[in-house]
Amino acid sequence: MLRMPRKDRRVLVDSSTLDDAGVFAHGRGEALVQTVDFFTPIVDEPYDFGQVAAANAVSDVYAMGGVPLTALALLCAPETGLPPEAIAAILQGGLDKMREAGVSVVGGHSVRDRELKFGYSVTGLAKRRSLLLNSGVRAGDRLYLTKPIGTGILATALKQGKLDETHARRLVRHLTALNRQASEVAVEFGARAATDITGFGLLGHASQMAEASAVTLQLSPTNDWLLPRVREHAAALVVPGGLARNREFYSPGILAEGVDEALLTALHDPQTSGGLFIAVPPRKAKAFEAALLRKRVWYVPAGEAVAPGEHRVVLGGPARGIR
Amino acid sequence: MLRMPRKDRRVLVDSSTLDDAGVFAHGRGEALVQTVDFFTPIVDEPYDFGQVAAANAVSDVYAMGGVPLTALALLCAPETGLPPEAIAAILQGGLDKMREAGVSVVGGHSVRDRELKFGYSVTGLAKRRSLLLNSGVRAGDRLYLTKPIGTGILATALKQGKLDETHARRLVRHLTALNRQASEVAVEFGARAATDITGFGLLGHASQMAEASAVTLQLSPTNDWLLPRVREHAAALVVPGGLARNREFYSPGILAEGVDEALLTALHDPQTSGGLFIAVPPRKAKAFEAALLRKRVWYVPAGEAVAPGEHRVVLGGPARGIR
Repeated sequence: MLRMPRKDRRVLVDSSTLDDAGVFAHGRGEALVQTVDFFTPIVDEPYDFGQVAAANAVSDVYAMGGVPLTALALLCAPETGLPPEAIAAILQGGLDKMREAGVSVVGGHSVRDRELKFGYSVTGLAKRRSLLLNSGVRAGDRLYLTKPIGTGILATALKQGKLDETHARRLVRHLTALNRQASEVAVEFGARAATDITGFGLLGHASQMAEASAVTLQLSPTNDWLLPRVREHAAALVVPGGLARNREFYSPGILAEGVDEALLTALHDPQTSGGLFIAVPPRKAKAFEAALLRKRVWYVPAGEAVAPGEHRVVLGGPARGIR
Repeated sequence: MLRMPRKDRRVLVDSSTLDDAGVFAHGRGEALVQTVDFFTPIVDEPYDFGQVAAANAVSDVYAMGGVPLTALALLCAPETGLPPEAIAAILQGGLDKMREAGVSVVGGHSVRDRELKFGYSVTGLAKRRSLLLNSGVRAGDRLYLTKPIGTGILATALKQGKLDETHARRLVRHLTALNRQASEVAVEFGARAATDITGFGLLGHASQMAEASAVTLQLSPTNDWLLPRVREHAAALVVPGGLARNREFYSPGILAEGVDEALLTALHDPQTSGGLFIAVPPRKAKAFEAALLRKRVWYVPAGEAVAPGEHRVVLGGPARGIR
């Protein structure tokens, strides 16, 4: 157990609440939103990997309702066995994606390592009053998911040679898509809370949000929530190692009666660069959905928050029918 | 060769100038100063290693004349072979040192790795007009070094079992000392440029500063610049691998006639958490030195900057005699 120093009053969010990023008050009504993420390659092409690492790293800032500004690159690379062109392609992919996000890469650090890893530390700005925290959900809020689920499963299928070219390309497109527009719409239309779906899977992050907000989340998942081919691979147990750990850890807090087994498996899939999971007050839901449509952001209405019950997350049935 | 995106006008310093940190204009007359550093253990005790990693990471912010505010921890740790208590001790050492520096650790990221590595991404604030850049030195400026040299050599001696307990403890104290006061004095007393001495050794960083500022630096090194035992180990070639690379790379720009060989070797020693190397306008030098004395900051007058000559760095003789 670490002895934590007394918290600076300017620290609005630290790692203790499982939020997506740290938040530090700075300037009038503003705050710095900061996050770091780096990992081993999950796609074949170095350029694509750089793009995925960048999209994934800035996503934590978007998930807090912030605008990313600067990044520092983190590179662990082997001395031999990886051509310099591959390293350059990774950095270029990252730079290009960061430019798309309006982020300046102001520095970085590289170390020798037997295993390639790449990622970024990212700093953004947010208005303090429009921060999207895990703890902001209120009973009655509508829930939305802004990217389909299944990147962990498809990346596993890719590694096992079980994903065709078309679906592999689609996976890359999905992994490199920014959550920027979804975040902007969420902030503009008064969303109350958000998180991005990453390593703990949809149900893990939903459970954390329910816990932090002291509500129960009623979700009505369908196969439309999944990327193409995810259901088949989930049924065949072509899944990443982290999936079973997620399921074991979060299942006790989840009521999942009557939910199709392959779909339930996929909802525990650890995501890289996943979509946002957003809670919107009911009176703002219509305008929020219209804005997502206008900006052509993929989304599904995922359910709603209710008063806290026995479970953190309850799956099944259309949420509106439950009220 | 990377295709760099067009630079955001708010980026005041990026990695292209070999400065110690990236700088991004934010707020009236202020700027974010950002840096990242992480590495494998160079001391035996996990708690000490955490402290060294923290002191080393914040040093880049001090070297730019900034005040560090927030940090994100970066941990690469093996799954087996390292007890959880060791990881906790590393994090605790880092937290305690960050608290001493007034820095809030607002998050972090850990990955599994065969080799332990630890460090931080750090964000600080600086006034734009008192930024201490590599490029700020003018002919006539007085130069100062604020920590003695030789951590790379002593860490190598430690690994080879050639350093006694007393000197090992002294090495740790040196590695964990913050550059905070030296930086504060430099900003308060109008220093024009600074860098911290790290991987390229004193002569490498001095060469970079001379190049960026278009001056020649005349240094008058003595054995007083070295930590105890460094000269003996340098003479016996108990030195880290990076030292020879530094010497090979920077020697062509350095005139070192008549300098003692062991001392010259030590001046190329890659430092971890090294001191600041500061350029001060001559009319401010007296007040600057008096302030360092008042705050009990170790320092040596290291020489002075002159109009650019054939070499970037000229060693030997008391600098004042050369004018």
